[in-house]
Amino acid sequence: MIYLDNAASTQIHDDVLESMLPYLKEQYGNPSSIHRYGRLSRKAIEKARKQIASLIDAEPSEIFITSGGTESNNTALRGIATKHSSGQIITSSIEHDAILEPCKKLSQDGFDVIYLPVDKFGMTDISDLKNHLSEKTRIVSIMFGNNEVGTIQPIADIAKLCHDHGVVFHTDAVQAIGKVPIDVHELDVDLLSISSHKLYGPKGIGALYIKKGVLLNPMILGGGQEHGLRSGTENVANIVGFGKACDIAKNNLNENISHMRKLRDILVQKVSDEISQVTVNGHPESHLPNNAHFTFLGVNGEDLIIKLDEYGIAASTGSACSVHTQKASHVLQAMGFSHEQITGSLRLTTGIFNDQKEIEHTVEILKKVVEELRSVSPFKEKYSFSKN
Amino acid sequence: MIYLDNAASTQIHDDVLESMLPYLKEQYGNPSSIHRYGRLSRKAIEKARKQIASLIDAEPSEIFITSGGTESNNTALRGIATKHSSGQIITSSIEHDAILEPCKKLSQDGFDVIYLPVDKFGMTDISDLKNHLSEKTRIVSIMFGNNEVGTIQPIADIAKLCHDHGVVFHTDAVQAIGKVPIDVHELDVDLLSISSHKLYGPKGIGALYIKKGVLLNPMILGGGQEHGLRSGTENVANIVGFGKACDIAKNNLNENISHMRKLRDILVQKVSDEISQVTVNGHPESHLPNNAHFTFLGVNGEDLIIKLDEYGIAASTGSACSVHTQKASHVLQAMGFSHEQITGSLRLTTGIFNDQKEIEHTVEILKKVVEELRSVSPFKEKYSFSKN
Repeated sequence: MIYLDNAASTQIHDDVLESMLPYLKEQYGNPSSIHRYGRLSRKAIEKARKQIASLIDAEPSEIFITSGGTESNNTALRGIATKHSSGQIITSSIEHDAILEPCKKLSQDGFDVIYLPVDKFGMTDISDLKNHLSEKTRIVSIMFGNNEVGTIQPIADIAKLCHDHGVVFHTDAVQAIGKVPIDVHELDVDLLSISSHKLYGPKGIGALYIKKGVLLNPMILGGGQEHGLRSGTENVANIVGFGKACDIAKNNLNENISHMRKLRDILVQKVSDEISQVTVNGHPESHLPNNAHFTFLGVNGEDLIIKLDEYGIAASTGSACSVHTQKASHVLQAMGFSHEQITGSLRLTTGIFNDQKEIEHTVEILKKVVEELRSVSPFKEKYSFSKN
Repeated sequence: MIYLDNAASTQIHDDVLESMLPYLKEQYGNPSSIHRYGRLSRKAIEKARKQIASLIDAEPSEIFITSGGTESNNTALRGIATKHSSGQIITSSIEHDAILEPCKKLSQDGFDVIYLPVDKFGMTDISDLKNHLSEKTRIVSIMFGNNEVGTIQPIADIAKLCHDHGVVFHTDAVQAIGKVPIDVHELDVDLLSISSHKLYGPKGIGALYIKKGVLLNPMILGGGQEHGLRSGTENVANIVGFGKACDIAKNNLNENISHMRKLRDILVQKVSDEISQVTVNGHPESHLPNNAHFTFLGVNGEDLIIKLDEYGIAASTGSACSVHTQKASHVLQAMGFSHEQITGSLRLTTGIFNDQKEIEHTVEILKKVVEELRSVSPFKEKYSFSKN
């Protein structure tokens, strides 16, 4: 299998699994237990917390561990909004459902939610944000890098603008972590969500960075773990793995970024050269290094995925998380894409375990598959596809 | 280490870890991805769901996977209560903090919360419940088996009474699962929380059984996983492990129960025989088979734990989850224990991996340690402890 769906999930790094195994075998104590087994688990968590913090230049005490990016996003939004009985929330129209759905719920609960538009590259306009910020704004949440088209928003500028208006700023950095150097103090964000399984760590674990002094209401209540912010027995093995994944990511950040970008650039170049009537989407410069998002005119993206799968290539039409709802991509809609353009989209996301040979083989197959699908496309007369 | 803190967490069964490994290695697809890797993950989850369902005689479609027992409890309480703008919630005074804390929050949000008292054995009185049930009652939540003293409540009777009044009934069965045969249809409960790591499965995963037709609001919103009830990329490996743990538990239920009870009975008998001024707490008959809860007069439970730990025995004063708050056990308080009795308490919980030799050695050590601690106890004059 050639795995080019690294934005959906990643292979666990061997060293990450290695680090987890003791906590899946002999070190099974509950971190809240006083005895040795408990203390060993507690110690392992605190080591991991340091590793997670270090990747984003935070203090360990600013890292709150959750069950993943979705929970982090929900905690951030609800945690801040529910400090108030009403008010305004500003987000963008291209956020992940893990932001949009909590916003929808908060809107039902009486909050006024503003969805900032984006341009055809998926970029928000900071002056739009400025126009909406007011003393009623409770929180602004704008994603770091988009999961479908890879566009990176100007996070530091947005954070500054929010702070000029005394507003808390959150960013969903689930896709950006490990692909962009992130220094929370330099960016000056208040809240930042990350997830382990997008970073060669295990699934079911993530974190919310909370800047010292920012207060929010907890969502999951009970035994008071994570300083009362997130109750429930800690998922020790996965936390340890997440910490190790962050440690590896930090130590290899530049090489990893270069590697993913190189493969992505080769992919985009070859596809553009060798396949006709294809567009490359997302922002041309401000872009995640591992994301390649295409539109193949006259092709159904889902058919494309299925065909690629038959040839042993794992790809995606966009967000893995929205297949449940079977709805057209709200991201591409917000970018002004036509229904036909949305239908023809394909996302290929490179990762640290991919190599150039895989990319070259993928382009070969893609060329063939697009040709096959176009030959039976209902649009073949309309667009008179040239044989590639 | 002799591990007698199985109520806090358990060792992962070798076969459980074995079942997880493929999903921590090569099968890393996001279950929402369309490609083969995604489909393999999806299939694994659905197999696990069947295994979980089977342990409690539920339908797979009635099993909703969460990040653990605490999240299951939060989801049940909030999920039902927030269907209404106000009303009454009935629970008991000996629930785990994962019930009490969400109840406290719901009380702040305007719900009227009734905490049923218990007798000295930790047993609720069903007539108390009957007196409180009314058309304003939104949900009743009474735990199956208590985590500290092991008392089992009459769940089927409580469920019936609730249903006679048209009220939804939830039970926190985190401690009971695998220690008591549970058939959700026979018990006729509406909602039931379970957790993997109390059952020789991995931490960070649990489930909420929701009887077909019972509707509740989701807590974590996003991509719509778990039929919209619990969003977030599924923790595939842990789900698979949880499924396997349920499968093993089901296939060995009677032997496991007999084994844990036998060891527990030997422990209780020997401690009662060989150590003076000790009481055994919890209900004498309606009791979890693996729980032994003692009060050693004139001894500080925490000192006892620390001493036992030095001798390689892992024990607990009660709930591992309340050490964060350092508060006196609300369970023992509700049972009418004096401060001195609460201080002197020790919980030893047997598991499937313990053996009789360990129990015998533990009693030897315990006898010695209690003697040592009593010799320096501030109460030694008051109680004139006999040398055991």
